[in-house]
Amino acid sequence: MGHVYNFSAGPAALPREVMQRAREEFLDVNGTGLAALEMSHRSKSFIAIAEQAEADLRELMNIPANYKVLFLQGGATMQFGMIPLNLLQGKNKADYFLTGHWSARAVDDARRLCEVNLAVDASDNGFTRLPPSGEWRLDGDAAYVHYTPNETIHGLEFHEIPETGGVPLVADMSSNILSRPVDVTRFGLIYAGAQKNIGPSGLTVVIVREDLLKGIPAGYPSMLDYALHAQAGSMYNTPPTLAWYLAGLVFDWLKRQGGVAAIEQVNIRKAAKLYEYIDGSGFYSNPVEKPYRSRMNVPFRIADESLHAKFVQEAEAAGLRNLEGHRAVGGMRASIYNAMPEEGVDALIEFMREFARRHG
Amino acid sequence: MGHVYNFSAGPAALPREVMQRAREEFLDVNGTGLAALEMSHRSKSFIAIAEQAEADLRELMNIPANYKVLFLQGGATMQFGMIPLNLLQGKNKADYFLTGHWSARAVDDARRLCEVNLAVDASDNGFTRLPPSGEWRLDGDAAYVHYTPNETIHGLEFHEIPETGGVPLVADMSSNILSRPVDVTRFGLIYAGAQKNIGPSGLTVVIVREDLLKGIPAGYPSMLDYALHAQAGSMYNTPPTLAWYLAGLVFDWLKRQGGVAAIEQVNIRKAAKLYEYIDGSGFYSNPVEKPYRSRMNVPFRIADESLHAKFVQEAEAAGLRNLEGHRAVGGMRASIYNAMPEEGVDALIEFMREFARRHG
Repeated sequence: MGHVYNFSAGPAALPREVMQRAREEFLDVNGTGLAALEMSHRSKSFIAIAEQAEADLRELMNIPANYKVLFLQGGATMQFGMIPLNLLQGKNKADYFLTGHWSARAVDDARRLCEVNLAVDASDNGFTRLPPSGEWRLDGDAAYVHYTPNETIHGLEFHEIPETGGVPLVADMSSNILSRPVDVTRFGLIYAGAQKNIGPSGLTVVIVREDLLKGIPAGYPSMLDYALHAQAGSMYNTPPTLAWYLAGLVFDWLKRQGGVAAIEQVNIRKAAKLYEYIDGSGFYSNPVEKPYRSRMNVPFRIADESLHAKFVQEAEAAGLRNLEGHRAVGGMRASIYNAMPEEGVDALIEFMREFARRHG
Repeated sequence: MGHVYNFSAGPAALPREVMQRAREEFLDVNGTGLAALEMSHRSKSFIAIAEQAEADLRELMNIPANYKVLFLQGGATMQFGMIPLNLLQGKNKADYFLTGHWSARAVDDARRLCEVNLAVDASDNGFTRLPPSGEWRLDGDAAYVHYTPNETIHGLEFHEIPETGGVPLVADMSSNILSRPVDVTRFGLIYAGAQKNIGPSGLTVVIVREDLLKGIPAGYPSMLDYALHAQAGSMYNTPPTLAWYLAGLVFDWLKRQGGVAAIEQVNIRKAAKLYEYIDGSGFYSNPVEKPYRSRMNVPFRIADESLHAKFVQEAEAAGLRNLEGHRAVGGMRASIYNAMPEEGVDALIEFMREFARRHG
């Protein structure tokens, strides 16, 4: 099989160098004689790995000391429930920005636990743009404001952090964490499923301001309580050690790329050339208005929809994998996270050009 | 570094052949050109892996068609909360067997959600034996009966399945699943954190009788609902794909060992020779009464406790790793799961004999 570029939205490819290193030390990490996955989570060997991963993430994101970093399980979907449980803190309502598929899922789970005020609702424009901040309907009495900075399926990204007037801001950064610098101090809580820009699925990173760790109401399982996880250094129960180790390799790799500011420049370049080709092609189209387009997930369509399946099939054969769009929206989608090299985007554009020539 | 035997209680060693195969195909599984960890969970390639793993587990445990097999996250600790939420079904009490550290943790979480009747309480004998069934105080009106067939820390194992008179039986088999045949039809629900006999940490297997899938009460996060996971084939959200794949390799390995009945014979032999040596040594001791001793986790002590640290240290140097007892009970502990070859137990006994000779 020739060179493969994997455009999966998640679980997504990890950087090639990380995969090579993980393979090399699969049976013996750091000369310990043990594989990462068979280390006791309480052993010195694993704790060294775990602490280094956290330190590297703190350095990469410039996370202040008054924020805890948690390595949990359950994906973003588990967070959809844990966030209201932990952050309502006696209040009964929260603000949500509805900007696509994933924020809608967050809203659904929040509604099980509290009143949801849709401060932003982009469903009426088909999730193709964000209303200007003057039109947001923030409720000053909300316990928190939740938004999804990058919508993985609809390809809509916030390029500025919302101003919430002191209400804690909560962000599902699953699909754009570490792709660009963010000012962590603007957030009460940031969470991310690992399987896009961090590592394999099964690990969830939560970055939470310490003063928000107040516990959960009586009558809920202990595993849902951030405070217990924070007190135990994310070892309230056995953490996903293999995924944590692999995340550490990714953080180390990212530091060696020059960190988040450096990778952002690559990400800007990759996204710009792909959108530029799509817009100028007269064959493909992307529905999102330019100021809100995602740098990570680029959905695109062909006017003749009958060509979609053919496109995906021929792309697969050419080593360009997982380009089918999410079943909720159809079409195609190229996810171009940190691990996607610029050559992968070039190869995709070249294939798209050739496909358009043959079918245009 | 010479040959290493890892006696960790979990995350524990996987079979050497599984580790070799996982390393060989780390970058390319089944000629797909993709690593297991970078496959979309909805891709044909991953679904084939996922379905094969489930089919193999069903075959190994002879799981009837009216049971669902779920591949979840959160470990046994997440189950401590999900079980009452899903199985109380309008009732307000459940029976629990308190037989050691882990059943105590299960009781703690259940008490957040319902009234707990301690049908068995072995704390008064220091968790060294089980009361005979005539002394159990089962409540016929309990929603379910929960027990821990093998106590990983105290080294206490049930060698018979409790009779509950029709009340659904729930078992935390984290540390003895697949180590011996069990009649699944005797259970309402079986669960196990993967990191002992199945795979890496971060995966939890739940086997549940279909008629018990009735959903959860309003006001709880959707991720806690078995019915949603079952309807979605364990893809209600992104599952821990790498761990699922590795579990599949372990199931395949176990089938090639002759299955659970065959590995049970090895496990009986391994445990018997270790206990026999301990009992006859006049130097080491195990506190559990013989009929209740665990085949998987063998705690042991030296009368002169000052030798414990020396034992662990010298054992480490000899390539016998992770023999320290759990901090809750001290002493030493050898976890000898399916993946521990008989030669590892022989090497441990030889080391113990030599250590006793020098320090006895």
